[in-house]
Amino acid sequence: MIGGGFAGLAATRRLGGHAIEVTLVDQHNFHTFLPLLYQVATAGLEPADVAYPVRTIFGREPNVRFRHGQVSSIDTDEHRVVLAGDDVLTYDHLVVASGAAAQFFGITGAAEHARPLYTLGDARRLRNHLLATLESADSHPESFDAGAPVFVVVGAGATGVETAGALVELLDICIRRDGLRIDPERSRVVLVDTGDRALPAFRPEAGRYAVKTLTSRGVEIRLGTSVIEVTPDGVRFADGEFLPAAAVIWAAGVTVDGTLAATLRTPHGRGGRVLVEDDLSLAGHPEVFVVGDAAAVPLRPGGETCPQLAQVAIQSGDHAGRQILRRMAGAETEPFTYRDKGVMATIGRRAGVTQLRRGPVISGTPGWFAWLGLHLVYLIGYRNRLTVLVNWFWRYLDWPSGPRLIVADAETEP
Amino acid sequence: MIGGGFAGLAATRRLGGHAIEVTLVDQHNFHTFLPLLYQVATAGLEPADVAYPVRTIFGREPNVRFRHGQVSSIDTDEHRVVLAGDDVLTYDHLVVASGAAAQFFGITGAAEHARPLYTLGDARRLRNHLLATLESADSHPESFDAGAPVFVVVGAGATGVETAGALVELLDICIRRDGLRIDPERSRVVLVDTGDRALPAFRPEAGRYAVKTLTSRGVEIRLGTSVIEVTPDGVRFADGEFLPAAAVIWAAGVTVDGTLAATLRTPHGRGGRVLVEDDLSLAGHPEVFVVGDAAAVPLRPGGETCPQLAQVAIQSGDHAGRQILRRMAGAETEPFTYRDKGVMATIGRRAGVTQLRRGPVISGTPGWFAWLGLHLVYLIGYRNRLTVLVNWFWRYLDWPSGPRLIVADAETEP
Repeated sequence: MIGGGFAGLAATRRLGGHAIEVTLVDQHNFHTFLPLLYQVATAGLEPADVAYPVRTIFGREPNVRFRHGQVSSIDTDEHRVVLAGDDVLTYDHLVVASGAAAQFFGITGAAEHARPLYTLGDARRLRNHLLATLESADSHPESFDAGAPVFVVVGAGATGVETAGALVELLDICIRRDGLRIDPERSRVVLVDTGDRALPAFRPEAGRYAVKTLTSRGVEIRLGTSVIEVTPDGVRFADGEFLPAAAVIWAAGVTVDGTLAATLRTPHGRGGRVLVEDDLSLAGHPEVFVVGDAAAVPLRPGGETCPQLAQVAIQSGDHAGRQILRRMAGAETEPFTYRDKGVMATIGRRAGVTQLRRGPVISGTPGWFAWLGLHLVYLIGYRNRLTVLVNWFWRYLDWPSGPRLIVADAETEP
Repeated sequence: MIGGGFAGLAATRRLGGHAIEVTLVDQHNFHTFLPLLYQVATAGLEPADVAYPVRTIFGREPNVRFRHGQVSSIDTDEHRVVLAGDDVLTYDHLVVASGAAAQFFGITGAAEHARPLYTLGDARRLRNHLLATLESADSHPESFDAGAPVFVVVGAGATGVETAGALVELLDICIRRDGLRIDPERSRVVLVDTGDRALPAFRPEAGRYAVKTLTSRGVEIRLGTSVIEVTPDGVRFADGEFLPAAAVIWAAGVTVDGTLAATLRTPHGRGGRVLVEDDLSLAGHPEVFVVGDAAAVPLRPGGETCPQLAQVAIQSGDHAGRQILRRMAGAETEPFTYRDKGVMATIGRRAGVTQLRRGPVISGTPGWFAWLGLHLVYLIGYRNRLTVLVNWFWRYLDWPSGPRLIVADAETEP
């Protein structure tokens, strides 16, 4: 089992308690609840609120082992997984759920200067950068072109919309509650997307609601605008305009975490996703399943490819676990079919959109409460749920405090 | 106002709301509640539980400004404070509360290889190291001399005793709840001190209680033992014995944060602490006060020097603030007198010692509850109190979860 994300956990959960030795390998000792990562980046939640130690999840399953390490290659012929440090694990069945990484579409400077939001480390680094930027805007406003920092969010999908909404809230708190002397008129949050609408995975009315709400809260939205270059100081658009920016946050899309999937000598689809059979196994290697963001999971047998969503990861991981059990019992594997349960996004305080598979788009306060409830339910661990609830409550009631700490990577303390 | 620790905050609080412009400078944008730092290091609390943004504390005081930056020198003749980056602040009154750093007593290798516990960064690094060591003991027990990691805590004062107690609890949770395959018989926590008793700042019965309780929980205590060398692989004692250790935690004492106090051309006392007048000002510079751990604060006029404790920092900082107000009103300054309110330490679940100025030492469960209550009261911010309470409750009830995440400084993620 490679990867402790949604897909890897779902597959491992399915196999827990059965007569099979499961080893879950991940380079992190924790599972990250990615849908709330943007709240860590915008100092609304703490890292430990959205992450959960993998060992604790499976502490009561004696047949599940956790191995903390990075996979460096997979040898499907010899049934071997090689870890960094040259330790080797052998397998009878393998589930590869190695996840995704930010997709920069080859845009000049994007990989170097834009800030992705895909790991807990990304979120911590972005938070430190945002807060340090606001501090330096307080002491040295003249060092910013606009007299105050401008933040650009690239990509108006759910992550981009949620991040932009949380950023204006962070700015508001820092200026109004923390007394940062930043001119709110000059400090801007700009949300950019190549497409002509926000939330393209949702029905059009959800995108219109997001644009209207974000605009009313002070986010500047530029749809139909392509970024062609990212520099340390800002972004250049296709029409040649250069927008100076203190941070460029990259929410434009994900690709496969390339290093690992590339070692599988199998065909790759769009965005580097590994092509799989209808049962999610590799062609010619029925004992290897590839699931979650790493795989081009078909919506249904022979169908289109699923989007890279948490729901797809959970369902495909669970499917792989079930197929391994079927094969151990001597049965044929079944094809995978995705069951769309809907999508949701939040824009900020009392503003969310929830779109179920059927029925209208629920927006505004009801959409927000639906979002809150579902995310609390899906979060692992009662302690995490409680601390997240405390943090949300605090911010919702506009009380001060909250984890607005700059705990930098390169610390200068003695 | 230099320093956002207990002393700097107390002085700033005293001046809040008065007709004086206060600028508080700190290299961190948060105040750290040092007495609970060891719980961050042992994965019981999150960094944001014990730290609070300085701006939020003074967000409602229009006469207080926060300046995020590092002080590089102080020119008492010109009344100037120079910051890194060459920004200059001028002052009419100055309070230096630049705090302390770990004291290594010139022991070979200690500064390089021992791990102090004095800043939030120290605590985070130590936590990452402890958890990563436990993971590698699970996958590669043969790489440890004893077949399992040994942790050494140097110094049996309050910090050392509390850290050793929390470490055995962490080991117990990791082995029993997280399923780490580490032999509890081989994994040891060793507490070392040169002196002949634990908790030397307390009355002898408190030290005896700490030794008895820690021993019964599995900590190995070596009193009257001097460390003469620290290497990357362990510690050497004065009798020549070398004890291999996966981590050497340094709780042996503090000195002044040297870089700053050294720029004050004034006499320094023991441990580099700045010698001050009875009113805590500098001789020849009545407009400069030095308080907290940075100063050799006298217990009473002409008396001995206070220990470096939070209570001393708070009282001396507040005193400096009051003297500035007196001087602005044209009055004489007053000498400082320390009011001992007692000391307390916790050893682990349901075991603490509380020693008031008069009366018996309260130990066991009552001592622990007294410790819990007082620390919650002194912690800044209701959100922090609530999340600390949640985390303590969880650990106390021995429920799983808790922030046992390795979020490393040098991240390898793409």
